[in-house]
Amino acid sequence: MPVYKAPVADTRFFLEKVLNLPAYAHLPVFANVAGDTLEAILTEGARLCEEVLFPLNKSGDDEGCTRHADGSVTTPAGFKAAFQTYREGGWMAMNAPEAYGGMDMPHILGTALEEYRMAANQAFSMYPGLTMGAVAAILATGSEEQKSLYVPRMISGEWAGTMNLTEPHCGTDLGLIRTRAEPQADGSYAISGTKIFISGGDQDLTENIIHLVLAKTPGAPESSKGISLFIVPKFLVHADGALGERNAVSCGSIEHKMGIRANATCVLNYDGATGYLVGEENKGLAGMFVMMNAARLGVGAQGLSQGEVAYQNGVAYALDRRQGRALTGPAEPEQKADPIFVHPDVRRMLMEAKVLTEGLRALCLWGSLQADLAHGADTEEARTAADDLLGLLTPVIKAYCTDMGYRIATDMQQVFGGHGYIEEHGMSQYVRDARITMIYEGTNGVQAMDLVGRKLASKGGRAVQAFFAMAAAEIAAAKGDEALADVATRLEKSLGDMQAATMWLMQNAMANPENAGAGATAYLHITGAVVTGLMWLKMARAAQTELAAGAGDQRFLAAKLVSARFFAERILPETGAHRRKLETGAATLMALTAEDFATA
Amino acid sequence: MPVYKAPVADTRFFLEKVLNLPAYAHLPVFANVAGDTLEAILTEGARLCEEVLFPLNKSGDDEGCTRHADGSVTTPAGFKAAFQTYREGGWMAMNAPEAYGGMDMPHILGTALEEYRMAANQAFSMYPGLTMGAVAAILATGSEEQKSLYVPRMISGEWAGTMNLTEPHCGTDLGLIRTRAEPQADGSYAISGTKIFISGGDQDLTENIIHLVLAKTPGAPESSKGISLFIVPKFLVHADGALGERNAVSCGSIEHKMGIRANATCVLNYDGATGYLVGEENKGLAGMFVMMNAARLGVGAQGLSQGEVAYQNGVAYALDRRQGRALTGPAEPEQKADPIFVHPDVRRMLMEAKVLTEGLRALCLWGSLQADLAHGADTEEARTAADDLLGLLTPVIKAYCTDMGYRIATDMQQVFGGHGYIEEHGMSQYVRDARITMIYEGTNGVQAMDLVGRKLASKGGRAVQAFFAMAAAEIAAAKGDEALADVATRLEKSLGDMQAATMWLMQNAMANPENAGAGATAYLHITGAVVTGLMWLKMARAAQTELAAGAGDQRFLAAKLVSARFFAERILPETGAHRRKLETGAATLMALTAEDFATA
Repeated sequence: MPVYKAPVADTRFFLEKVLNLPAYAHLPVFANVAGDTLEAILTEGARLCEEVLFPLNKSGDDEGCTRHADGSVTTPAGFKAAFQTYREGGWMAMNAPEAYGGMDMPHILGTALEEYRMAANQAFSMYPGLTMGAVAAILATGSEEQKSLYVPRMISGEWAGTMNLTEPHCGTDLGLIRTRAEPQADGSYAISGTKIFISGGDQDLTENIIHLVLAKTPGAPESSKGISLFIVPKFLVHADGALGERNAVSCGSIEHKMGIRANATCVLNYDGATGYLVGEENKGLAGMFVMMNAARLGVGAQGLSQGEVAYQNGVAYALDRRQGRALTGPAEPEQKADPIFVHPDVRRMLMEAKVLTEGLRALCLWGSLQADLAHGADTEEARTAADDLLGLLTPVIKAYCTDMGYRIATDMQQVFGGHGYIEEHGMSQYVRDARITMIYEGTNGVQAMDLVGRKLASKGGRAVQAFFAMAAAEIAAAKGDEALADVATRLEKSLGDMQAATMWLMQNAMANPENAGAGATAYLHITGAVVTGLMWLKMARAAQTELAAGAGDQRFLAAKLVSARFFAERILPETGAHRRKLETGAATLMALTAEDFATA
Repeated sequence: MPVYKAPVADTRFFLEKVLNLPAYAHLPVFANVAGDTLEAILTEGARLCEEVLFPLNKSGDDEGCTRHADGSVTTPAGFKAAFQTYREGGWMAMNAPEAYGGMDMPHILGTALEEYRMAANQAFSMYPGLTMGAVAAILATGSEEQKSLYVPRMISGEWAGTMNLTEPHCGTDLGLIRTRAEPQADGSYAISGTKIFISGGDQDLTENIIHLVLAKTPGAPESSKGISLFIVPKFLVHADGALGERNAVSCGSIEHKMGIRANATCVLNYDGATGYLVGEENKGLAGMFVMMNAARLGVGAQGLSQGEVAYQNGVAYALDRRQGRALTGPAEPEQKADPIFVHPDVRRMLMEAKVLTEGLRALCLWGSLQADLAHGADTEEARTAADDLLGLLTPVIKAYCTDMGYRIATDMQQVFGGHGYIEEHGMSQYVRDARITMIYEGTNGVQAMDLVGRKLASKGGRAVQAFFAMAAAEIAAAKGDEALADVATRLEKSLGDMQAATMWLMQNAMANPENAGAGATAYLHITGAVVTGLMWLKMARAAQTELAAGAGDQRFLAAKLVSARFFAERILPETGAHRRKLETGAATLMALTAEDFATA
């Protein structure tokens, strides 16, 4: 039986002991998590994930979604009741503004819960997740009338939302979209075209679905500067919110996918459907990107989440399954074999999973703190610093956490041997579900290009220079502490790799932009390891402080120090290899032509 | 539509220009591939794979196998006819001895074809593949009567074979098996027990199935020293080969797996089934390992194969799909967007796939050459040297080729973006199918332990020292050639990492064997990169010689030089990171207890 327990104690350690969230209580953005509220919400959220969502994770994957002849879609058994429970708990209102019925909680709490929800049931949690994305887009660019009409009903879970960007011939390059929006006499638009890969494009969980659709108005520029955003409800909506007639949008088919099978990924056909412009004409992409950046942080947490649930099951199996004997002699001589936990190569995979999941959790939370501070800090300087850091971290969190989540899930499946390959234990599902996180909301290669092509150079490289200074200061402070010195020294070496790689890019990308492209993924992975290493240094220091004070769970704190050392010893060396790769540039990489790739 | 074309030209380049196979023509082991035979067989085999096996790859995955109420199993549509074609082509007789109706071809040819077959249809090719494994086990330890009765009918494809090792509670640790073999008055045994994960455990392709089963006789030692091997036919066999009554072995269920879905993975229940001892009592495991070592080389080629077919589809998609513009300005201004082939990060994935697949192909073929020379070389010295090298290379080929095959398949899926995640294009299947190769025939962790725990130290480290001398000589010879010097220098650096890692293991594993276990996977990956790098140096040198002579396909040869450089620049740096990890030893890795892994 697969297991999952939300890691509340670890989340709280980072929020309370490392970030010292209580110290931010004076800022309005954190007002709603003051006192015991944080703990109460985390604990209650954990319970929901463990008891309601996780039990449907494997059965949902086994059953998948069903599209009926009339185009309607049914979600797997139990999803409707679970969604009802989810709604009633008010979980969708968590991060929405109070003005529209939300609870106005900070991003950082949303991220903590996002990990739990996604670990418990990624396919399920995408239904409310995409709805929140649609809400964010409406809040960012919609009219007051649109906000009042749609947002309260969406955050109550009465209606859902979807994001419609991709078309058969275009995904990353949205300038190519062909969906048309013809202005109508009443001020609405007639939307026609085909959108694909629409998560939750149809379902039986909500009364209505509010599709947010990118389309082009007549005469709009050909590029991404000619894209407008529209609201297209599944059922038309009267001014009082009552549902009207069925709109001309229908699910043509659902995709047969590698994973997240319980989420209906639809082809949506728009046949002159009634739509309403959101924000200004031709400015649709900008509004969409406000939402997308927040979503990218969330996808990072999803990558982590699949690593976490896989890790917990890997540990359980390694302690239960007996094969062979410890290299140092039988660990449990009274048994016929020792648990495979005793084998160093199994332990290596478990330790890597442990230090990566805990490190990535810290990274996701730290990134979300910047999102909160970027608008909620009390000085302009602090808001700008947080915004700079957030911009730099967003592509790193999205891509590094998802690449690592897939790596962890694959390793944990390996711990199970042949039993990991059959679907029975659920390990295959974690790998299959994790795989999408490296692709959607911008592939990880797109994230890497965003990092080296946009974020690094932005404002004269201010963000990365500030990060270097911050990391160097943390390292310098830690080097004097015997318990932290080794970790600090190893992190310093990796920081050196990042600085050298940055310098190399600055010196070589001007001459040939392909040098930046050729090194983008390597640079992102260097950065990911360094920022996660910095999280470990912060965690080690906090643990050391607590230990010295004799406070807290001594075993937990001592393990943090060991784990920090393991991360430094076993993950940080990867930065050196990435740096060496990056410094070879684009020449050899781009030397072959299409003909050279043909199998002769 | 998925594409696959067997890379015959690349195989031939390595066999003929790099290994200079014609120079071995005087050895009887290569007698049957003299003249044009090699080319003819490769070409004919390629045609079969492209035209018969590959068209059933995706449909077989979609449909899977069906177990009926009576326990019988049906393979997907088209498999029966394809198997008939496969049989009639004589492909199963390729590597079997002439004395039993085989063609006695060298291993190296078998490996070349194994890659094609597995790339075209892994699930299908496992049916004949496991049969050949069973044949190898019978040939290694069976009586003359058993060989004459079973082998000719198995290599003709009239009957199939399976390997029955795993039980629900044991896989790697076969000493724990519980299946019993009770001696009967007529000299046969009554076999009772449950075997799981039996590939091709039942099917509708052949008239009979010869199960090779590990079991324990009464009073046998508890450890792996008490295991005997039995032949248990699905239908009992008369002395003249005619089929008798149904034996008491049945398929209890088929597994629902992540991949290789068209291969029936069965739970087999033995209820006092009639079995016949193969070889000596309690010596079953030794015979099985003769077969297993050959199988491990084959699994390496399987890992490569999934990388190769994924690579070919990745290239095709990258040249077809248009998104965005080249960083250096529009490559095809008359089109609305450039093919994604122009993007450096896409090219990076394609180049890594190209140099890994070509390098791994060379490695698999070079390893198989050692298998041929180990018994077929003309001096005792040469046979011993080949056998040493084969022993060292076997775990490396199995684990490195499969880890890299999965990495390539995952990267090629990434090239497809969202279109890689849906099943339509087949990319998901290559990842899912590749995944098993890291697990079966001994997990890759088991291979790593075999390498550091057994192969490295064997005969005073003779094999690895001989490898160092051979690699150093190749590097020294290449350094003088301007076209090869950079590759040679980079390889020398990685060879240095391997030598240092070897030294570290020798100095630290004696004191604590967990230091060997903790570094095993890192060491295997260093070795994998170095031996594949050596293959690239050999290929580059051969290409350079041909180019200088103005012979051969100049474009193909020039690409080999670029690819060698890319491997040196972009893959070899990984050895440094692995070495640094390995040198941190087991202390931190083994420091935490089971309690520390509990989610608090």
